[in-house]
Amino acid sequence: MRNSKVVTLEEAIRRSGLKDGMTISFHHHFRGGDKVVNLVVDKLAQMGFKNLQLAASSLSDVHAPLIEHIKAGVITGISTSGLRGELANAISHGLMEEPVVFRSHGARGSAIAGGELHIDVAFLGASSCDELGNASGCPRSENAKSICGSLGYALPDAEYADHVVVLTDDLVAYPNVPMSIRASRVESVVVVDSVGDSSKISSGAIRDSKNPRDILLAKQAAKVIINSGYFKDGFSIQTGTGGASLAVVKYIRESMIEKGIKASFALGGITAHMVKLHEEGLIGKLIDVQSFDKVAAESIAHDQSHQEVSAVDYASGEHTGSAVHALDIVILSALEVDTEFNVNVLVGSDGVIRGAVGGHPDTAEDSALSIIVCPLLRGRIPCVVPKVTTLITPGKGVDVVVTEYGIAVNPARPEIAESLKAAGLKIVDIHDLAAKATSIIGTPDPLPFGDKVVGIVMDRHGKVLDKIRNIEE
Amino acid sequence: MRNSKVVTLEEAIRRSGLKDGMTISFHHHFRGGDKVVNLVVDKLAQMGFKNLQLAASSLSDVHAPLIEHIKAGVITGISTSGLRGELANAISHGLMEEPVVFRSHGARGSAIAGGELHIDVAFLGASSCDELGNASGCPRSENAKSICGSLGYALPDAEYADHVVVLTDDLVAYPNVPMSIRASRVESVVVVDSVGDSSKISSGAIRDSKNPRDILLAKQAAKVIINSGYFKDGFSIQTGTGGASLAVVKYIRESMIEKGIKASFALGGITAHMVKLHEEGLIGKLIDVQSFDKVAAESIAHDQSHQEVSAVDYASGEHTGSAVHALDIVILSALEVDTEFNVNVLVGSDGVIRGAVGGHPDTAEDSALSIIVCPLLRGRIPCVVPKVTTLITPGKGVDVVVTEYGIAVNPARPEIAESLKAAGLKIVDIHDLAAKATSIIGTPDPLPFGDKVVGIVMDRHGKVLDKIRNIEE
Repeated sequence: MRNSKVVTLEEAIRRSGLKDGMTISFHHHFRGGDKVVNLVVDKLAQMGFKNLQLAASSLSDVHAPLIEHIKAGVITGISTSGLRGELANAISHGLMEEPVVFRSHGARGSAIAGGELHIDVAFLGASSCDELGNASGCPRSENAKSICGSLGYALPDAEYADHVVVLTDDLVAYPNVPMSIRASRVESVVVVDSVGDSSKISSGAIRDSKNPRDILLAKQAAKVIINSGYFKDGFSIQTGTGGASLAVVKYIRESMIEKGIKASFALGGITAHMVKLHEEGLIGKLIDVQSFDKVAAESIAHDQSHQEVSAVDYASGEHTGSAVHALDIVILSALEVDTEFNVNVLVGSDGVIRGAVGGHPDTAEDSALSIIVCPLLRGRIPCVVPKVTTLITPGKGVDVVVTEYGIAVNPARPEIAESLKAAGLKIVDIHDLAAKATSIIGTPDPLPFGDKVVGIVMDRHGKVLDKIRNIEE
Repeated sequence: MRNSKVVTLEEAIRRSGLKDGMTISFHHHFRGGDKVVNLVVDKLAQMGFKNLQLAASSLSDVHAPLIEHIKAGVITGISTSGLRGELANAISHGLMEEPVVFRSHGARGSAIAGGELHIDVAFLGASSCDELGNASGCPRSENAKSICGSLGYALPDAEYADHVVVLTDDLVAYPNVPMSIRASRVESVVVVDSVGDSSKISSGAIRDSKNPRDILLAKQAAKVIINSGYFKDGFSIQTGTGGASLAVVKYIRESMIEKGIKASFALGGITAHMVKLHEEGLIGKLIDVQSFDKVAAESIAHDQSHQEVSAVDYASGEHTGSAVHALDIVILSALEVDTEFNVNVLVGSDGVIRGAVGGHPDTAEDSALSIIVCPLLRGRIPCVVPKVTTLITPGKGVDVVVTEYGIAVNPARPEIAESLKAAGLKIVDIHDLAAKATSIIGTPDPLPFGDKVVGIVMDRHGKVLDKIRNIEE
C-alpha cells in the first residue's frame, strides 16, 4: 500500500537513529515465550551497537542470552520490573557495572510519562499489525501465529518513545482495528517469524497451581475477603501472580452467587478464572493491563467490556485516575513478609534476584484492602521474617497476611481484624508468625552480600526505596 | 467512591489553576447542539476571567453568545476549524482585535501534539463519565441524556492539555468502559444538565440533502468514482460535509454489489449511509473521528469494527500513520473552486466567514483521489471562479471537480481524465467552467474588504496559507 512502513529489522534500526548509549525498550506480554528482546539485541550486537540501556517492562528466564551481550558491552544498563533465571543469577553475582533499576508497573508507566525514563527507540512485538503500524496483541487473520491479548505495558512506550518500531508475525490488511498501538505513533513495521510463543504466556509465576498448600491458602484468603467488610455488591478485585493469589477468584465465586453479590470490575493481570466469572455475569468489567493466559487474551479480542489499559492507566501513582485508585481488594503473593508488614517479591532468601516487582506496591498502596497470601515456610526457607531481604512494598500499604498458620492483620487496620475474628478466623500476631518460622528452622545465617550495588528499587514516585547488593558464593 | 473527582464547574475551574490569558479548549461533537462552550464561558465571565484564548475544534451558529464575551474582553483570541452564523458575521466585520486562527482538523491535532497550540485547560463534554473521569460520547445508562459517538476531536485535548475537565450529563458507575477519554488524563468531572442536544448533530452542513441538484451531483460523483480506476476491491472512501458529498455512498452501493467490490474502510465523519453499507458487509471497517448522525453514534457504541480515532490519528500531516495516508478516495464540497483547482470552504463569496476548514485540506492532500462536488452557481453566486476568495485547500491536492455543467480534471492527473472520458463522462476544462459562470451572471464586483486581518488560515504544517480581511458594509 501507499506509505507502507514495512522494512527489515536492520533498516528499522538504521532509520530510528539509534546511537550508542541510547535507551531501547520492550514489553513482556509473551512472558516466558518472548522472542523479541533476544532477536533485537542480537541484531543490535551484530550491527555493532554498544553501551545501550535496556528498558524492559520485565525480563525472565528466556532472556539468559543477554548475559553475553552484557559481557560484550552491548547492554550496559537495564531497567525492568522483574528478573529471573540465569540472567538474574548472573546479575546478582555482579555481572553488570551499573545496577539494574527496578520499578513497579505503575512506576515504570509514570516514569515514562513524566520523562524520568526516556525511551529513544521502542521495539514492540504485536500479534497483528498493518502496514501503517496499527498494532494489536490479538490475532486478526487466519495466518495469525501468536496471541498475547492486552498490550498494556507497551502503551506508555508507544506513547512516549521518540521512535517506535513494531515487530509482528502477522502483517494484516489496513486498518487493523481495534488497534492497541496507533499507527500515528509508529515509525517502522518489521515482519518476523515469531514475536512470541503464546503457549508460554501462562508460565512461571502465573501457572494455575495444583499445589495443595496454595489451594489451602487461596481458600483462606477467600474467607478473609468474604468477611472483610469489603465483600459487597459492586466490589472490585485484583489477583496478583502466584498460584494461591490467582486461584482466590475461584473460591469466592460460590459466595458471590449465594449472596447475590456481583463485582463491578476485576483489574490487572486478567485470568481465565476472571473471564469465567465475567461471562457468568458475576464480574461486570475486566480492566486488563496484561492477559495472564490464552483465555483472557481471547476474551479481550472480542469483548467490549474487557478493556485494555496502559500501565499508566492501570497503576500510576502520579495519575489520580489510574484504575488502582478505584480498586477495593487485591490479593498478592510474597517471597517474604516481615513483622512491619513490608513485603519482598524480588530477591530470594538466598539473596539472589528471582522475581518481579510487578504491580505489587501500586495495588497494595492504592487498594482499600490488600491481602498477602504466603506460606510460613517454603521448604527450609522462612517467608515471614523479622526483616525483608529487600523492601518492595512498604508495610503501610499491606493490610492482611494469610499463612497456613493463621492470619495476621496490620495493627493499623483493627476494624478488619475485628471483622475476621467475628467470623471465626484465626487471627495471629505477625511477630508470632515470624517466631514460629524461626522456631521451626532456626535463625538463618546472614546472607553473604558483597559491597557492590547490583540493583536499585525505585518507589512509585521516583525515589530510591532500597538497594540490592551482590551476593558472594 | 474513593478518589472521586466530581466537583462543581466553579470548583473545577478553580482547581485548574486557570489564569487570565490562558488557553481553554472545547470539542464540537454536538455541532449545532453543543451546550458546553456557552455554559463554561458564561461561568468564566461570571468568575471574572479576562483575555482568554478559546481553542475550539469548531464553532457554529449556536455560539453567538460568545459575541458578548468577546466584547467584554473575556475571550480575546479564538482558534477553530469553522465559524458560522452571527459570531462569524460579527468577526468578519471586525469584532475582534486578534485574528481568528483557522486550522484543519489534522492541523489542529498536530499543532496540539507538537506544542504549537498549547492548551492550559480543556473542557470536554461527554455523554457518559465515571467519577474518576473515564469518558465516552456513548450513552452507558438508562439515565443517558445525550449521545455523540466518537470523541475524536477531543482526544488530542485530553492527551496534551495541562488540565482536563470532563463535563457530563450522565455520571455512571466506575469503570465506564470502553472509555474514549482515559481517567488518567482527567483532573475534574462536572455533572451538568446537558452537554448537548443530540438531535442537532446532523444539522447544518451534514444534513441529508433532498435537493435535486445535490442528488444529481452525487450521482455524477459516483460515476467518477466508479470509472476513476480507484474503484476496486479493498478501496477506501471518505465523504465530507455537504449534501452532495455525503450522499455519494448511496450511489456507489449498487455498483459495489454488482461488481462484487467491497471497501476496506470508510473514514472521517461517519454517516448512517456508511453504517448501512458496513452492516451489509460492503465496507469492512469504519474509522470515525466524528459521528455525523445518531445512527453512526449508535453504531460506534457497540461495534468493535467501528473504530474511534483522534484528530491526530485521522488526519495529521505530521504523523505518517494518520489514516488519511491510507485513504483512496475522498469526496468533498466547496464554496468556491478556482481555475488552479484551489478550494475555499470557509469564506462566502460575500467575504463573510460561513464555513469550516474541516478535514478538507488533509484528505485532499493525502488521498489518492480527491473529488470536489459543487454546483457551478448557487443562485447568483458563482462557485467555479478565477480565484478563490480564501485559499483553504491548495489545488495540487485536488484531482476532480464535479459540477452540473461537466467534470474538470486537474491537468496533473491526465490518467484520470482518460479513464473518465473512456467511460463517456463529460470532461470540461476548468477555465471553461469559470467562463461559463461568468457568462451567466457576469463578473461580480470586488468585495469591500477592509485592512484589518480578521482570520489567518494555517496549513497542515503550521505555516500561514492565507489571511482573511474584514468586510465592510
